[in-house]
Amino acid sequence: MNAVTFQLKKVCKDTKARRGQLKTPHATIETPVFMPVGTAATVKAMRPEDVKELGASIILSNTYHLYLRPGHEIVREAGGLHKFMNWDRAILTDSGGFQVFSLGDLRKITEEGVTFRSHIDGSTHMFTPEKSMEVQNALGSDIIMAFDECAPYPADRAYVKQSLERTTRWLARCKEAHKNTEKQSLFGIMQGGMYPDLRRQSAEEIVEMDLPGYAVGGLSVGEPKEVMYEVLDQCVDYLPKDKARYLMGVGSPDCLFEGVERGIDMFDCVLPTRIARNGMALTSHGRVTIKNARYERDFSALDAECGCYTCRNYSRAYLRHLFKGNEILSSMLLTNHNLYFLVHLMENIRKAIEEDRFLEYKKEFYSKYGKF
Amino acid sequence: MNAVTFQLKKVCKDTKARRGQLKTPHATIETPVFMPVGTAATVKAMRPEDVKELGASIILSNTYHLYLRPGHEIVREAGGLHKFMNWDRAILTDSGGFQVFSLGDLRKITEEGVTFRSHIDGSTHMFTPEKSMEVQNALGSDIIMAFDECAPYPADRAYVKQSLERTTRWLARCKEAHKNTEKQSLFGIMQGGMYPDLRRQSAEEIVEMDLPGYAVGGLSVGEPKEVMYEVLDQCVDYLPKDKARYLMGVGSPDCLFEGVERGIDMFDCVLPTRIARNGMALTSHGRVTIKNARYERDFSALDAECGCYTCRNYSRAYLRHLFKGNEILSSMLLTNHNLYFLVHLMENIRKAIEEDRFLEYKKEFYSKYGKF
Repeated sequence: MNAVTFQLKKVCKDTKARRGQLKTPHATIETPVFMPVGTAATVKAMRPEDVKELGASIILSNTYHLYLRPGHEIVREAGGLHKFMNWDRAILTDSGGFQVFSLGDLRKITEEGVTFRSHIDGSTHMFTPEKSMEVQNALGSDIIMAFDECAPYPADRAYVKQSLERTTRWLARCKEAHKNTEKQSLFGIMQGGMYPDLRRQSAEEIVEMDLPGYAVGGLSVGEPKEVMYEVLDQCVDYLPKDKARYLMGVGSPDCLFEGVERGIDMFDCVLPTRIARNGMALTSHGRVTIKNARYERDFSALDAECGCYTCRNYSRAYLRHLFKGNEILSSMLLTNHNLYFLVHLMENIRKAIEEDRFLEYKKEFYSKYGKF
Repeated sequence: MNAVTFQLKKVCKDTKARRGQLKTPHATIETPVFMPVGTAATVKAMRPEDVKELGASIILSNTYHLYLRPGHEIVREAGGLHKFMNWDRAILTDSGGFQVFSLGDLRKITEEGVTFRSHIDGSTHMFTPEKSMEVQNALGSDIIMAFDECAPYPADRAYVKQSLERTTRWLARCKEAHKNTEKQSLFGIMQGGMYPDLRRQSAEEIVEMDLPGYAVGGLSVGEPKEVMYEVLDQCVDYLPKDKARYLMGVGSPDCLFEGVERGIDMFDCVLPTRIARNGMALTSHGRVTIKNARYERDFSALDAECGCYTCRNYSRAYLRHLFKGNEILSSMLLTNHNLYFLVHLMENIRKAIEEDRFLEYKKEFYSKYGKF
């Protein structure tokens, strides 16, 4: 019995969009779902209660960051990540792979794993599949991700092929090393770059390991959105229908719709929290850059159709004032709004799938939102 | 009838400490009271609901800052400061005087008022008693402060005397210019530096104007604490017993005790919010510098005797982790704690006065808190 189980409830009549349910030791998660990112054991500028109140049932946290600071042993001694950060719903941790590969010249890949230097103090470390499992077991997240290589874009076919094959070997080592199977479940990650046959090869290899969920990795790494959609069109079907499917690092409203339409169940992205701190809001009528002079005397809500705490209590003029003054409350209120916006967008998408009007809802949303 | 009234309930049997009640259009405030500072229409890193939840009934906001940004006319158009910032309890605004005098070379004083240059964009402005009233009337705060000159420390007697006399003339102009007497009440400010006879002269002149409250200004401007206490010993009695007495810019735990003991009813200070953002907490056992290595594996609460949200839900190890990572949640949680600590300290002080054991409580607090 896996700690995490997925149940498919319904498939949209017109598209591959799916309604499902993911059960973890800490939450029952309705899918498709958007997972807010809490990189360093905090969803930036938010109290955990507020993340719950806006409807999030699962968040993502980053293994690389927590390994370096405060250190996974400290989190283990604290009683695990849930207790350390005061979050009692589900947590998914990534493997640290993506972050160490992003370090560029600061890392070196071998069959054993990846040697890298800390972005904090320059110290040298090594991540292996076994180490990633050890760290994620210490964190105690509900869903732990396999240690994989996310090949860059563009990358030549020969490189992508040898990389995905190593990722498969690493997955086998992860499965072997994962010690806390009663409370945590391991998800595999499909690679293969933009090559359909390599995506198929990767999928076939990892699906054989019979895990409760699989991620589509190696997308949203700089390729045009059309390319990402095309790869999804081809490769999502390689994954089993009865397992959860997770598209990593994706979270703009259009990508959420396009991902759901292609059969994805889970998403995460720093976009809503990061742009909030830069004074940008996602609204039903498109993005709002709050510092614009036009909002100086705009006493209406950020989004008249939104029911979030920020929109219920504050005006655009006030939000602009806070942002211009570099006030912390600006980040707090805009983050709250942006997360609420995406979490409720997913709620609406789920409802639309249930009522067999996903494409209709998508069209309605796009017509108001304008260009992306 | 004044918009704001003060009622003295009880005087401590051993000291001048007083229990009173201040009624404003937005709140009934039990005194002695500590007022959190919300400089730019936000108590930094706090949602207004959280400021309320920790027990604050009145906050202070700064006229100088709001005049420059977003501009008082915008706040007026928003429906006043309470509505603009989503705070429905009482607000006291200062006059802008202290801030413009702090600008040093950027300001010039005449009988008419003060010409100064904005710290934001260098533009030239003039504050007069009439202008300060106009701005504060636009903000709509419950208690508005007279436009005064806060003489520096040290300052020679001749300067302090002519300055306090001008402050009296400015107070008369403020009283004349204040337009919204039904919803806002004007408090006068006693000056006179460290000279007892000048303090007496200032008090006699301003008390004649029969205002519902008076502040002791010109203290906490760099003088040793003993000097401040000595001046308070002498000058608080010059103020009428049946009016509220406010010591401006004071808020460390020891100064709160010493001020209350000398008959002060109201206090404000940026200390708890500012040091919170710098990683420092006020606790019943003294100040805690959260980044200290000794807290790395300290999974106990910041203050075991504190019932605040932060102490109920987070460990020192987690707070240290957040601070070291420069996370916004660090400022949020430490600010919440520090404000709760001072607001509840005042609650305990009020209770002690009621039960005629103020000195006993002070001794008990000091013995645990350690050196200041």
